[in-house]
Amino acid sequence: MTRRRKIYEGKAKILYEGPEPGTIVQHFKDDATAFNNKKHDLIEGKGVLNNRISEFIFTRLNEIGVPTHFIKRINMREQLVKEVEIIPVEVMVRNVAAGSLSKRLGIEEGTPLPRSIIEFAYKSDELDDPMVTEEHITAFAWATPQEIDDMMALSLRINDFLSGLFLGIGIRLVDFKIEFGRLYEGDMMRVVLADEISPDSCRLWDTATNEKLDKDRFRRDMGGLMDAYQEVARRLGILMENDTQPPRTGPVLVK
Amino acid sequence: MTRRRKIYEGKAKILYEGPEPGTIVQHFKDDATAFNNKKHDLIEGKGVLNNRISEFIFTRLNEIGVPTHFIKRINMREQLVKEVEIIPVEVMVRNVAAGSLSKRLGIEEGTPLPRSIIEFAYKSDELDDPMVTEEHITAFAWATPQEIDDMMALSLRINDFLSGLFLGIGIRLVDFKIEFGRLYEGDMMRVVLADEISPDSCRLWDTATNEKLDKDRFRRDMGGLMDAYQEVARRLGILMENDTQPPRTGPVLVK
Ligand SMILES: Nc1ncnc2c1ncn2[C@@H]1O[C@H](COP(=O)(O)OP(=O)(O)O)[C@@H](O)[C@H]1O
Ligand SMILES: Nc1ncnc2c1ncn2[C@@H]1O[C@H](COP(=O)(O)OP(=O)(O)O)[C@@H](O)[C@H]1O
Ligand SMILES: [Mg+2]
Ligand SMILES: [Mg+2]
Repeated sequence: MTRRRKIYEGKAKILYEGPEPGTIVQHFKDDATAFNNKKHDLIEGKGVLNNRISEFIFTRLNEIGVPTHFIKRINMREQLVKEVEIIPVEVMVRNVAAGSLSKRLGIEEGTPLPRSIIEFAYKSDELDDPMVTEEHITAFAWATPQEIDDMMALSLRINDFLSGLFLGIGIRLVDFKIEFGRLYEGDMMRVVLADEISPDSCRLWDTATNEKLDKDRFRRDMGGLMDAYQEVARRLGILMENDTQPPRTGPVLVK
Repeated sequence: MTRRRKIYEGKAKILYEGPEPGTIVQHFKDDATAFNNKKHDLIEGKGVLNNRISEFIFTRLNEIGVPTHFIKRINMREQLVKEVEIIPVEVMVRNVAAGSLSKRLGIEEGTPLPRSIIEFAYKSDELDDPMVTEEHITAFAWATPQEIDDMMALSLRINDFLSGLFLGIGIRLVDFKIEFGRLYEGDMMRVVLADEISPDSCRLWDTATNEKLDKDRFRRDMGGLMDAYQEVARRLGILMENDTQPPRTGPVLVK
């Protein structure tokens, strides 16, 4: 077996060269980081769950016509995606005040926002992903006005769809962060959803109990991260067989 | 003499009820503050200079058709203005990287920006005037999309005019901060420039030497604040008679 070329190793994932030109293998690690890597830990099994959850969400998004980089899941930790030129702007969509918005604007966590708010951050570890506006993005040519429009329109569709999806399984989609990339096809270019969508990149609160089912459990030292991610996967109907049942040791009687 | 009613005392100015309904007297104090009042000092004569400089700039802006609150200067420290409903959003216009933008985006101070950038901050002392975007402003109804458009269009005109004005007197307009208000006239409402424009609210660098002629001298403990403000006033041609010459003691010989 020949060794694959590693293209990039990030905080939570590794990118390898894919089998075909223009493809990439996205490998989900178990690393949990927060506050731009100042806090770091290994959470066994997190990568496996995020791979499955992100596969599920990207597949559903592809089905409703939201273009994404996703091709298929390859194994427990890896998925095949189309290589894109990542736009260096993180897009946050917020439905309920939480995290940095609560702090910055003095709005209590959990307060529903008057309407969904889109925020942008410049993707830069050294600068701690500073919040930026369309003014900065266009002035520094990180994206064109057309690309910003595309990202915003797609973000709102994704927000509508995911809000509904999670609501149906008793989860409030408080906010989430996504990344987009430029997909070149011949001499055409399209803005598509890239990276991942998982409890690492969303705030997910149980609608009944307000329990956090996302990475805030890690950021805030609440423990129970894997249980929470597993609960999300279970409600989405994508838990691996052996996670809910004792290992099968033989034929099972059909009742 | 009857005592005027004080409406508001801020960090640098006091507002009194004006002689007519719908008017306000804006009184310029000598207080210098920075970092949202964490640093405070009295700089004798600053209020007098800012009153004169702001009068000069607002008069010129009125002349080119930029609507402002300014009516007239009353005395050394006071000016009569139209009462407006202040929009709680500070507008920053930046031509050259400096201050918080340099820090936030890691761009060296003094780097010319690819184009002028407008930023907004939510006017809140408790929250340290956090940067916000059009998304926050409209979601929380601090201003309507139309008002944001008006503020941006006026800001760009003001930037063009002031850049030219200062360039003509050997000063680079690096950035500035302005405030707008809603002026109600009958059942009409207009967005007009309010507050002040002075070396307190601009970054002004000498084009030849890069010397700072603005409040950064105070923020950065450089000293010479009054000299700098006086130099700006002098170059604008508005220094009070007795500031450049020894007091006149008698008739002066015409050469
Ligand atoms: N389809 C893609 N093509 C190229 N790069 C991608 C694609 N999808 C995601 N990426 C990038 O791959 C990296 C994923 O690894 P991650 O651990 O999230 O990195 P980081 O620490 O930079 O967030 C990110 O930098 C992301 O922008
Ligand atoms: N024409 C006006 N009508 C009403 N309020 C005004 C007008 N012009 C300026 N203001 C407000 O008056 C105050 C001026 O005082 P200042 O010391 O600058 O206060 P602050 O500490 O709030 O910045 C500001 O809050 C400003 O928004
Ligand atoms: Mg990432
Ligand atoms: Mg002020």
